[in-house]
Amino acid sequence: MSQKEISPSEDEDLRKLGERIKALRVKAGYANYEKFANAHDLARAQYGRYEAGENLQYKSLLKVMKALNVTPKEFFSEGFD
Amino acid sequence: MSQKEISPSEDEDLRKLGERIKALRVKAGYANYEKFANAHDLARAQYGRYEAGENLQYKSLLKVMKALNVTPKEFFSEGFD
Repeated sequence: MSQKEISPSEDEDLRKLGERIKALRVKAGYANYEKFANAHDLARAQYGRYEAGENLQYKSLLKVMKALNVTPKEFFSEGFD
Repeated sequence: MSQKEISPSEDEDLRKLGERIKALRVKAGYANYEKFANAHDLARAQYGRYEAGENLQYKSLLKVMKALNVTPKEFFSEGFD
């Protein structure tokens, strides 16, 4: 499955959020976002949009953080000063 | 204006989020959430629901953080381990 290109958000805050999600996903050992989403019971297309910087609800962000195995404190500890 | 009671969320994650928003609002010197919302161009009723633990979008949470004058890193640095 190729990594389908989803156009990144023009919104700086959301782009930064998506990049952090992606960086932590890669750090967790998943080169492919679809495999990560499948492995963690997250809807693939929706998860892909989160990495591309779609605005999402706090509870959805918490679900992504749990899948990435980081706390909100750890998630926002880099790049959100 | 009395502080209208809004029933706090049963969801632990959202309750904790709302409590953090409230604690930072009080720390910023606003005993009344409606005055805080007015002073920062936030819709009063909506802001009250955020403090009560309503699920909100990331961009809305960022607006609240900006009004509280804290970064996401600072916001999640206490109570979100």
